[in-house]
Amino acid sequence: MKHVSKGLCRTLKIVSALMFIMGALLTTTKAINAKDDAKSSSGPEVTYFKMENGLDVVVIPDHRAPVVTHMVWYRVGAADEAPGVSGIAHFLEHLMFKGTEKIAPGEFSKIIARNGGEDNAFTSQDVTAYFQRVAKEHLPMVMEMEADRMNNLKLLEKDVLTERDVILEERRSRVENNPNSLLGEQISASLYLSHPYGIPVIGWMHEMAKLSRKDALEHYKNYYAPNNAILIVAGDVTSDEVKRLADKFYAPVKRGPDLPARERPMEPPHVSPRRVVLEDERAGKLAWQRHYLVPSFKTAPKGDSEALEMLMKVATGGTTSRLYKKLVVADKLASSAGGGYSASGLDYGGLYIYAIPSKGVTVEQIESAIDDVFEKIAKEGISELELNRARNAYIADYVYGNDSQSGLARRYGFALATGWSIQDIESYPERLKKVTVEDLQRVAAKYLDINSSVTGILIPKAKKMAEKK
Amino acid sequence: MKHVSKGLCRTLKIVSALMFIMGALLTTTKAINAKDDAKSSSGPEVTYFKMENGLDVVVIPDHRAPVVTHMVWYRVGAADEAPGVSGIAHFLEHLMFKGTEKIAPGEFSKIIARNGGEDNAFTSQDVTAYFQRVAKEHLPMVMEMEADRMNNLKLLEKDVLTERDVILEERRSRVENNPNSLLGEQISASLYLSHPYGIPVIGWMHEMAKLSRKDALEHYKNYYAPNNAILIVAGDVTSDEVKRLADKFYAPVKRGPDLPARERPMEPPHVSPRRVVLEDERAGKLAWQRHYLVPSFKTAPKGDSEALEMLMKVATGGTTSRLYKKLVVADKLASSAGGGYSASGLDYGGLYIYAIPSKGVTVEQIESAIDDVFEKIAKEGISELELNRARNAYIADYVYGNDSQSGLARRYGFALATGWSIQDIESYPERLKKVTVEDLQRVAAKYLDINSSVTGILIPKAKKMAEKK
Repeated sequence: MKHVSKGLCRTLKIVSALMFIMGALLTTTKAINAKDDAKSSSGPEVTYFKMENGLDVVVIPDHRAPVVTHMVWYRVGAADEAPGVSGIAHFLEHLMFKGTEKIAPGEFSKIIARNGGEDNAFTSQDVTAYFQRVAKEHLPMVMEMEADRMNNLKLLEKDVLTERDVILEERRSRVENNPNSLLGEQISASLYLSHPYGIPVIGWMHEMAKLSRKDALEHYKNYYAPNNAILIVAGDVTSDEVKRLADKFYAPVKRGPDLPARERPMEPPHVSPRRVVLEDERAGKLAWQRHYLVPSFKTAPKGDSEALEMLMKVATGGTTSRLYKKLVVADKLASSAGGGYSASGLDYGGLYIYAIPSKGVTVEQIESAIDDVFEKIAKEGISELELNRARNAYIADYVYGNDSQSGLARRYGFALATGWSIQDIESYPERLKKVTVEDLQRVAAKYLDINSSVTGILIPKAKKMAEKK
Repeated sequence: MKHVSKGLCRTLKIVSALMFIMGALLTTTKAINAKDDAKSSSGPEVTYFKMENGLDVVVIPDHRAPVVTHMVWYRVGAADEAPGVSGIAHFLEHLMFKGTEKIAPGEFSKIIARNGGEDNAFTSQDVTAYFQRVAKEHLPMVMEMEADRMNNLKLLEKDVLTERDVILEERRSRVENNPNSLLGEQISASLYLSHPYGIPVIGWMHEMAKLSRKDALEHYKNYYAPNNAILIVAGDVTSDEVKRLADKFYAPVKRGPDLPARERPMEPPHVSPRRVVLEDERAGKLAWQRHYLVPSFKTAPKGDSEALEMLMKVATGGTTSRLYKKLVVADKLASSAGGGYSASGLDYGGLYIYAIPSKGVTVEQIESAIDDVFEKIAKEGISELELNRARNAYIADYVYGNDSQSGLARRYGFALATGWSIQDIESYPERLKKVTVEDLQRVAAKYLDINSSVTGILIPKAKKMAEKK
């Protein structure tokens, strides 16, 4: 049952990311948003071309080692699912390993492994992606296999039922047995009053339990086609080599029908703060978090997304952040505190703050202290020193991200699959540098609006009696 | 602009019901659920037949006056709308008055009025209904006109745009300008984590603003057909007369395609209580309410819906209820308090409790007192006297409902359109009589689960500073 455990592993990162980042975003977010500040000096020479069947191809040369990262990204995620079939995008991702006419069920990953490579796949609200990392000489084989399953997936009823048990078990172990995940789901469902980001990527259990071969094939036929995909090849290759191989393996893949614009139901105005409280005996400590409805880079007015990124870096990023210094170091109200902003997401970004209150500290004290941190920034701004430090932290993250071949592949893939242009990706660090103190003040006042927030509180069950009057 | 004001009037009842009954249910609920306890002695002799084109016809004789009530109910409501086009069911209801080949735009209601009758229409989460009340001799005319617009609606682009302004204005005046309605919407959106009952019947403003002639015609073609409709004729007619007229006017109406089962995405388990707070300067007083996710008669385990009905009568119905006697009379914690259960709804019912705290009383005090009321019932039960009084109150409501011809028409129409059988309707009072004290205790413990609740608090804006630490 190696494949089963692989199936579980495949989405581990995604599901744990769900806990804090509202089910909409991947852990790869940071890597995607980071980019060199001086592209010409150290950034990769990325090339792009579009094939006749609509496949977008991006080549990211990286000659440090004779390996390649090959990824196919489909512009479809959980938020594109039809009502009532939540989880189908992720289920199909699992089923993509069930074989074709050429590849026997379960063989895909084994072939990669036998050739010394590794593979994986993941699903988010906006994308579904397949990943292989192999020695350079195996790139043709990997391309052939990935192109094959873009059109020719073969699903047997029995394999579908077996795999459905796998995703149900995945949900049980990752969500039902984890109070953080459970609370995260309820927070997302309360944060999004209308938009499908409120529905978990993995699906609601009662809907997952009914997912069928027919549902999976329908999703496959609707969304899996070269004109809805992006091929990313990063590694020890040239653009010409990739072009030649793509012509051989991907050109024959049939184009699908044109897809309509990805228009999901957007949020109505939020006019009242919401609170969600989960008491659970499996919870270790009282934990506090707050999520705000915020735009993504795609949907924000020009400059707002970049300013939110810097704001959250200064306010909540790491142990030198304002939040940490006040709550943990100075006032000793919390044993841990932080937060973040994610600019990715086709329709909305994500902004969250969390704190673990120290013993004896009330939720009210935490909230009041956190409000103070942001109000102070909105009113008084920050020092240029702090802003510079945040910029430098960003660049450092970027350089680190650039070091990773798969990080680069993910950065480009995710961004392109959610509607960024290559220009958007490459100019993002430059745009971040232009953020001013006034921008930070403006977005702090504009977006940290309690009316568009959900506060989530996790309470260890033992405290239940004490909470009750 | 008589027609405009009529358009506004048409849904007044619906929108005000939304405030407290979670957008899913009509004000007609009580009438539908009530029924004589001894049908043979005083209940109407209802007859039913199905026409070849699928139209269900129900005749309710009432010979007290030479008038008839004619209603057509479509088995479609706001919860059947496609994602992103919220409000289309209600918008089409308005547009149904825009005329056909035979009737000029806006003439429908004028013709009824010129003949001394009145007409109306309304939309809920589960149904859309059209109503006329006329002197008996005008029944053929009304049938001809209603049958005509079932197939032959004619929509001009300019009429659609004008009417869209009407519904937008309707939303502005009934919802945006009313903090109770605004809060109600946010509560529903938080109560339903997945099910479309969380989306308001009138629609979200940003989606209503984009509703088009094409959207309306699509909804019309999908759902308006005899095989998706129920004709109710109540009044001074016999079954034979109605049959003759229906054969003449409704038989020629073309059957539509078979419709799939009305399966909406159902709720995942609710594991954490939610709170929604609206501060609004237009709010007069601090107001508290709590809503629970509960089954409807259609979806509840046998007997649970009836027991919830009796429970809420005893606990929250009127000034002799336990809640009122404790909170208002004895403890003087509230100036008003009540609640109710609605058994209607295709997928879920509705259960809510509200209180207006007296000056100086905190939300915590109110919640604690209300919890006590229900915990006491769950633990200790109630007296047979109280249960009898609740039963009698029910019968009294029923007799009153029976007196109203239009009330009877609505009771049967709504119930049939949401999947009840005539037998369900007629046996409901009998089933209510079978509810025992133990049943009340059981459902109080089972359904008043804080984890499936949303608590909504309306705070007058002036109090904002005081609320803040």
